[in-house]
Parts: sequence; structure tokens; C-alpha cells
Amino acid sequence: AQFMRKVVSNGTPLTRYYSSEVKKVTIIPGDGIGPEISAAVQKIFASAKVPIEWESVDVTPVRNPDGKFGIPQAAIESVNRNKVGLKGPLMTPVGKGHRSLNLALRKEFNLYANVRPCRSLEGYETLYDNVDVVTIRENTEGEYSGIEHEIVDGVVQSIKLITEEASRRVAEFAFVYAKENGRHKVTAVHKANIMRMSDGLFLHCCREAAQKFPDVKFEEKYLDTVCLNMVQDPGQYDVLVMPNLYGDILSDMCAGLVGGLGLTPSGNIGLNGALFESVHGTAPDIAGQDKANPTALLLSGVMMLRYMNLNKHADSIQQACFDTIKEAKYRTGDLGGQAKCSEFTNEICRKV
Amino acid sequence: AQFMRKVVSNGTPLTRYYSSEVKKVTIIPGDGIGPEISAAVQKIFASAKVPIEWESVDVTPVRNPDGKFGIPQAAIESVNRNKVGLKGPLMTPVGKGHRSLNLALRKEFNLYANVRPCRSLEGYETLYDNVDVVTIRENTEGEYSGIEHEIVDGVVQSIKLITEEASRRVAEFAFVYAKENGRHKVTAVHKANIMRMSDGLFLHCCREAAQKFPDVKFEEKYLDTVCLNMVQDPGQYDVLVMPNLYGDILSDMCAGLVGGLGLTPSGNIGLNGALFESVHGTAPDIAGQDKANPTALLLSGVMMLRYMNLNKHADSIQQACFDTIKEAKYRTGDLGGQAKCSEFTNEICRKV
Ligand SMILES: CC(C)[C@H](C(=O)O)[C@@H](O)C(=O)O
Ligand SMILES: CC(C)[C@H](C(=O)O)[C@@H](O)C(=O)O
Repeated sequence: AQFMRKVVSNGTPLTRYYSSEVKKVTIIPGDGIGPEISAAVQKIFASAKVPIEWESVDVTPVRNPDGKFGIPQAAIESVNRNKVGLKGPLMTPVGKGHRSLNLALRKEFNLYANVRPCRSLEGYETLYDNVDVVTIRENTEGEYSGIEHEIVDGVVQSIKLITEEASRRVAEFAFVYAKENGRHKVTAVHKANIMRMSDGLFLHCCREAAQKFPDVKFEEKYLDTVCLNMVQDPGQYDVLVMPNLYGDILSDMCAGLVGGLGLTPSGNIGLNGALFESVHGTAPDIAGQDKANPTALLLSGVMMLRYMNLNKHADSIQQACFDTIKEAKYRTGDLGGQAKCSEFTNEICRKV
Repeated sequence: AQFMRKVVSNGTPLTRYYSSEVKKVTIIPGDGIGPEISAAVQKIFASAKVPIEWESVDVTPVRNPDGKFGIPQAAIESVNRNKVGLKGPLMTPVGKGHRSLNLALRKEFNLYANVRPCRSLEGYETLYDNVDVVTIRENTEGEYSGIEHEIVDGVVQSIKLITEEASRRVAEFAFVYAKENGRHKVTAVHKANIMRMSDGLFLHCCREAAQKFPDVKFEEKYLDTVCLNMVQDPGQYDVLVMPNLYGDILSDMCAGLVGGLGLTPSGNIGLNGALFESVHGTAPDIAGQDKANPTALLLSGVMMLRYMNLNKHADSIQQACFDTIKEAKYRTGDLGGQAKCSEFTNEICRKV
């Protein structure tokens, strides 16, 4: 498969890859309910005749020749070869020193923008009916730098690392994303009143990016203000861009507004590929019982299809999923229904 | 006035000061709507025959003998002498290098615990009717250390500083606060899965404090999980304790759930005194027009009275305030009413 990467003037990649051929896609089924929801997504994609082939890999850490544990080489090669992957939930290995496998993957492939759309689902009621926001989270540095020291006994510092390079590319990504997706406003979320230099640099990069995209509205808001506004009037926000930790928080909060992590998709986009994932846990209590809701992973798959420019397939699957949830007959237990995962899945297959 | 400071075994102060005499209290009216809402509070306190005398001070930064701008000496001395203060909103001075005056005050008096109760108000409808949480925020360090460097061009680090001393005292404060206020659970909010050393140390101190208070339930939750739960089911939380920035975010979010910063009080408690403040802004657009809602400052005053062990006065003022809001007749504009600040105030005076 041959890929074309569109770039804007200064080298920032666009938010999509384009391919003209049948494409191989890496799938990481994951742990707990991961395999069953992955199978559900694959079944629905097959029904919708999505022109992709799956390559399934396991990412359970293995001991490498150097003695350290790491992601298996075959998995890394698969993602590097295919450039596009879909990933179910992963258990974090227990024990000190193990960092989250989710983070390891983001790092390994330099997936610098974490994109999480949250939209009120028609027919599925929560307290809010007008949520339609996308959080775009810097995904490689910030509070997640992993750099920490104990200075003296009982005095610890963690370093929040903000670079111009990473801030600029995620800021520009946010504007390109907004344009490509017909959105009107980008809000930079920050605490530059407190972290004047680090969040100040991030904000500066957002302002500069805003200059390059004069047809997208731009505003700046304090993180605490956004949190307050979001629970009172989420309709005022559109696309939000922010440093790593703020995105972790805000994206979960926004997911809460529309029904939780079982319903919201996520994509990690890099310079050289992208990994789409459901953000919920492995739900070991219901694993293997045909009870899980595959919606988050399915909608992550839909994001993946748009990334691959397979928009018609994306539209049809998304519509079938929304309609099935709206009709309520085949809702899974987490949405107050009685349906099994397989019944929900079959209904979507019938509709696509 | 003579004060007794109760201490627990290891020197952690309790959450209250006790005085047997009429007490002088510092009041910082503040900017914008500050003077009118401060006057409203003073009027209500007088009607309720609260046995305190006010000492009004101005904290507008002045140029000190050393040439630097700082809080006027008279204001500092007043707070140090009286140990207890009430503060309206302050403008942040414009220009680079000026840190927030609010923060400067917290720092000057080493006010290490920021306490913000958020409770659904009976009769004032929001989307939530079962919020009753108290966020307790470490108020002296963490992401607010102010330590930042530019390593090389375009690479900035901000230091999150977590010490055992500050973590332990705020953790123990949270448990003492829970016990004294008849609360049942303390939740430590953290991202120790990411900031293993810094949030790890904070969490460790919370666990140790929990051991000393076996009759208060203790749980640990990730910040992102708390944000998600809070918008779906806030009733599951009670007292929450956390590092500085997390408290900034969560307290605003919780305020949003019950109607915003115009309705929620706040207290900054230190080893040697306490400053209670409304957290909303100066609202220059309505300043001087008798339109402002004094509730947040009034309820901060009520917190102050409890801190001074003047519980009966606190109860009567709080009840009068809640009843006035509930009856709706004298609500101010921000709550959808027509009343002036003075009408709302007079109605509370009538009731106490
Ligand atoms: C699992 C955890 C390490 C991760 C994070 O903190 O980023 C998760 O909360 C997320 O948002 O993807
Ligand atoms: C004004 C600002 C510096 C302050 C903070 O960030 O702490 C405010 O948001 C607060 O919560 O009191």
C-alpha cells in the first residue's frame, strides 16, 4: 500500500492518511473484554464490506534479549508496517517499575495527538443533550515526561516538560482537525497564570497556530474555568487543545457528560501512523460472558476509517451504531438494556 | 484574645481556633464588587449580633523600601495579629512578573489547606440535587511551586514539588476535618500511576493518615476517574484531598455542579491562622450597581464563624441565607431573580 502524507507549510502532518488499495490494519485485541469487543468490531466491519485486512498482534510484554520487558518486536513491526492500528483495553502489568502499556505504545510510535470526540447520543439520555466537543491532548510530554527525582528525603520533584516543537505540532494539528471536520472554534486550555513559562510556551504556540488559520475562531481559557463551564453549559465548547494531563482529565469528564468511557472513541495520531483505542478498562468481572458493550471500540474504528479516508464506510457503521443505541431494543447492560454483546453486534451488522 | 491550639499527636493543628472573647477579624473588601458584598456581609453579621469587630485593610500592592512591590505591611500585621480574616475578590495586577495576589496571601501566611465545600442548595435547581462534597486542596506547593526554567530555547520545565511535610499535614487535616464535621469518607485524588514519585509520596502520606483515623473511611481514586464520576454521580463522594492543581480544577468543577462560584465558600487554613474568601471574580461590569450576589462571601464568613467556634451564629446566618435563596423572591440577577444586593441582604438580616 502506498501512502501520501499531506503536509502544511511547516511540516505539520495532516490528520489523515490516504490509501487507494486494500489496507492491512493492525489489531490489538487486548485483555479482559478486549477479545470479544474486537471480534464484534471485526464482524461489523466485515458486514459493512470495509476494504481492510486485519493483522492481529499481541502486545503482552516479553523479556527482550537485553533482559528488560518490552512490547514484542512483532507487534512493533506490524504497527510500523501498517501505520494504522486498532486497540482494545490492556491490563497494566502489576509491580513496581512497570509503566502503563497504553503509554508505552503512545511513546513507541510517537503518537503526539490524542483525539477524543464526545457527543451526546440521540436517544440515550444523560443530564446533558448538547455536548459536541473534541479534546485534543498533547500526548508525548508535559506531566507525563516520567522525569522525577527525590531531592532529599521527603522532597520529590516531578518535571512537567513543555517543548515548542511538541506544542506547535499539536496546536497546528488542532486547527487542521477543526478545519477538516467543519468545526468552528479552537479553545486553548491552560494554567499560564500559574505555570507562566511552561503553559505560557504552550499558549504561545497555540496563538501562533491560530494566526495561520484565521477562519477558525480561537480563544484561551483557564483549565479550572473550562471545568466549571463544561458542567454548566458544554454547548459553548467545540475543539479544545491542551497539555497532556489536562487532556487526560477533561476528556474523561466530557466522556462522563455523554454516558461514560463505554461510548466514546479515541485516536492517537503520530507523524508516521495512528493507533485508535477504546479508553475504558478491561472489565474482568464480565469478560468472556458476552455482556460487554463494543461501542467505544467500534466508534474508535470509525475514527480510524475516517483517518484512512474511508468515509462512506465510517458513516454507515456510525449511523447503524447510533440507530441501534437509539432504538434501545438491543442495548447492553451498561446502558440499562438486556442485550448480549453478540445481539447488539448482529443488529448493527443487519443495519449497515 | 487568647487562643488555644489543639494539636494531634504529631503536631498537626486542628481545623479550628477557639476564643472566649470578642474577637477582631481582618476584612479585605477587595476590588470590583468586593466592597459592596463585604458591606453586605458586615451588615448581616451585625444583625445576627456576631461578637466580632472588623478591622478593614487594603492589600493593593505598594512599593516597599527595597523597591519591590508587595502586600502592605499594615495588612500583613493585621492578619498576623487577628489570625482570622475574610477577603473579597482581588484584581490580579496587570503586567509581567506580577503573581496573583490571592496566591501571595496564601503563601505569606502559609495557609496550607484550602477547603471548599459544595452543596446542592435546596430550592435552587441545577442538573444535580445530591452534591455534598468538600475538596481539600494542598495550598502551598505542587504545581504551584513557581519553579520553572527554560533549559534550552523552546524547552521549558516546570517543577511540581511534593514534600512529605506538606502532604502529611494536609492529609491529616482532611481526616480531622472529616471527623469534626461528621463526615464519613476521605478520598485521596491522585495520578500516582503517572507521577509515581510525587503523587506517590502524596498518596503514601494519605494512607498513613488514614491509619490514624480508622473510623473515617478511606479510598484512593485517579483524578480522571473522579472527574468522570463527579459529573455522573457526585453523591458517591464526601471529603476529597489532593495536590494543589487537582484541587483548583475539582473545586471549580464541583462549584459548577451546584450553581457556580457565586454560591460556594472557601477557606484557607494555616498553622497560625486562616483566611476565608469568595473565589469568584471582581465582576467589574456590575460593580457599584447594587447587583452583586454576596452569597459566596457570606458563606465564607459562615465557615469563618465555625472556625472560630461561633457555631450558633454560623447556623443562623447560613439558614437565613439558604431560606432566602429557596424562597426565590429576593434572588439576585445571577440566580435569575430581580433583587438588588441590598434587598437580598436586608431579607437575610430580617431572618437571622
Ligand atoms: C491508563 C492511563 C495511564 C491513561 C492516562 O493517564 O493517560 C488513561 O487514563 C487515558 O486517558 O488514556
Ligand atoms: C486566581 C487563581 C490564581 C486561583 C488558583 O489558580 O488557585 C483560583 O483559580 C483559585 O482557585 O483560587
